[in-house]
Amino acid sequence: MTAETFRTIWLKPDDPSIVQIIDQRLLPHEYTVHDMRTWQDACTAIADMYVRGAPLIGATAAWGLYLAALATPTVAAVTAAAEAILQSRPTAVNLRWAVERILRLAATNGDEGLVEAIRQDAQAICDEDVEISRGLGRHGAKLLEKISRRKNGGRVNVLTHCNAGSLATINYGTATAPIYFAQQQGIDVHVWVDETRPRNQGSQLTAWELAESGIPHTLIVDNAGGHLMQHDEVDIVITGTDRTTRTGDVANKIGTYLKALAAKDNGIPFYVALPSTTIDWRCRDGIRDIPIEERDAEEVSHIFGMNNGKLTRVQTTMSGTPIGNPAFDVTPARLVSGLITERGVCEASEDGLLGLFPEMVDA
Amino acid sequence: MTAETFRTIWLKPDDPSIVQIIDQRLLPHEYTVHDMRTWQDACTAIADMYVRGAPLIGATAAWGLYLAALATPTVAAVTAAAEAILQSRPTAVNLRWAVERILRLAATNGDEGLVEAIRQDAQAICDEDVEISRGLGRHGAKLLEKISRRKNGGRVNVLTHCNAGSLATINYGTATAPIYFAQQQGIDVHVWVDETRPRNQGSQLTAWELAESGIPHTLIVDNAGGHLMQHDEVDIVITGTDRTTRTGDVANKIGTYLKALAAKDNGIPFYVALPSTTIDWRCRDGIRDIPIEERDAEEVSHIFGMNNGKLTRVQTTMSGTPIGNPAFDVTPARLVSGLITERGVCEASEDGLLGLFPEMVDA
Repeated sequence: MTAETFRTIWLKPDDPSIVQIIDQRLLPHEYTVHDMRTWQDACTAIADMYVRGAPLIGATAAWGLYLAALATPTVAAVTAAAEAILQSRPTAVNLRWAVERILRLAATNGDEGLVEAIRQDAQAICDEDVEISRGLGRHGAKLLEKISRRKNGGRVNVLTHCNAGSLATINYGTATAPIYFAQQQGIDVHVWVDETRPRNQGSQLTAWELAESGIPHTLIVDNAGGHLMQHDEVDIVITGTDRTTRTGDVANKIGTYLKALAAKDNGIPFYVALPSTTIDWRCRDGIRDIPIEERDAEEVSHIFGMNNGKLTRVQTTMSGTPIGNPAFDVTPARLVSGLITERGVCEASEDGLLGLFPEMVDA
Repeated sequence: MTAETFRTIWLKPDDPSIVQIIDQRLLPHEYTVHDMRTWQDACTAIADMYVRGAPLIGATAAWGLYLAALATPTVAAVTAAAEAILQSRPTAVNLRWAVERILRLAATNGDEGLVEAIRQDAQAICDEDVEISRGLGRHGAKLLEKISRRKNGGRVNVLTHCNAGSLATINYGTATAPIYFAQQQGIDVHVWVDETRPRNQGSQLTAWELAESGIPHTLIVDNAGGHLMQHDEVDIVITGTDRTTRTGDVANKIGTYLKALAAKDNGIPFYVALPSTTIDWRCRDGIRDIPIEERDAEEVSHIFGMNNGKLTRVQTTMSGTPIGNPAFDVTPARLVSGLITERGVCEASEDGLLGLFPEMVDA
């Protein structure tokens, strides 16, 4: 289990003008803490993926607005910074959610005491996120417990894609929270970690944090999951999501849809773990309506790794090869066995979600 | 189109004691011709993947037996070498086919004139393979022509996985042959090239040979194909196969099954191009009966690329991360729209295959 005190973003204890993050681009090779001193630093951290994962992107945006207020403590300055921060990643709905929350607070608060008000709310966003992950962990662990009982205590094999782990949130993660909580209950869990091309969040982040937490795991290429499912090597798939529609469609890291198809074809449950902040209550058709970010070709053509103890970047393709790099895909609700939320597990449908979040019926 | 004279394996013109191949491990960064002087060199070339692709593996095995006969021109020596060569790759059925063909010839021929007899037959295997690819090209191009007509001459988008190209055969390839022949007919073809982790045959081999042949193409990670299919960006999927069962199940590079699922889910035709030598007439259930090679973990953890003009190998994972690396998966016949063979296109079923190959009814 990740340490209780582990955090992915925090205010520097001896200098509250600096927000610190882990530069996740260097993991697992180097653990480096990065200082953000301006709201522009927060934009860069989000756009260039020092941080990633929908909840952590939201928290970073909130802390970015705190840095904006520190520089110019007016609602106008914070609002201007918010516009720019919103452009840093187009798909993650938490980004908009966190920015809008801070802007509402700023509007209510006014310029007086603005810095302290935003600081408290950014901290609250982080604390609430940890509570949400704990909720996902408690509810999701029951699914693993059930499989463990069915297998008479035998090993439960979970497949996950990308990193919806502690590193994607503030602590515990979304897709990994049920795994960490199951481990704490003594359930024998093993995780198949999809490498997750092109950015290798699986091999570089998920494998790192599972190793840190002592969870047995095996890294595989993204191509391998279907084969493992055909041969009864996977009991359940759990992924995170960057945006969930009102109807239960799930936008997540590119390739998630392929794993959902394979799970369906082999009768294996496919669950998605999500804080309710990733639900876009205004969106009904994920494939039609969720914008899919096309990212830089160099994410595909180049890769970082260690060579003789030095972090080295190599180009694996020919120069001039045309490259497409869509960052997300949408898994339709019909392929999703259920959604794990902080309030419980529900069917991937409007009825299922409204059953847990009745207050959103008119949203 | 690949040049008429392009070959992937040949007897050195001025020294018939040497068989030459392209060291495909260095593509696309370096084009290097490698000399094989002994049958053990052929084993190494197959096992370490200087050459890959079912037809080329078969041809390399045949030329390896020629080198064995050159060293010791007896049926006994050739038979002993054959045993070892058969162990070099377990999945490709062409390996066994080519070895058994040469062994039958050797047994019939006896020790007298053995070298020349095997040389002629190894050459015949290569020449026949080119003829087979031409057949696949002619028959498969009709499928692309039909799509082109339906789109009023608009671009035909083909998705392919791994390299079932010229580099996997002697020339023209299997999955690529229809593409090359369609191009020659003036059809506007564009190819989505799956990167094909872990060995990146797509980005390193398919992208290279399509560029050499002037075929428009776009490299994508293996995760992206499903998303493209959801958004009408793929008209047809064509892959090769390492082994095809009598019932139409297809063992091909790991990840093929996931693309077949996505094609089915989106109503996109999924075709497999194969020389009939890859059909295992004795096998009826691919998922149960085809042995799947588990390859070295370093194929996943390490990768080659260019850094400052130098071929450099980097480790992308943490040291100590446990890794699984199954090399193939099996796509059940129910997901295959049709099989493109040198005799024509048929349904992926026993009836379909026996319709084209009636002589195999009792095989």
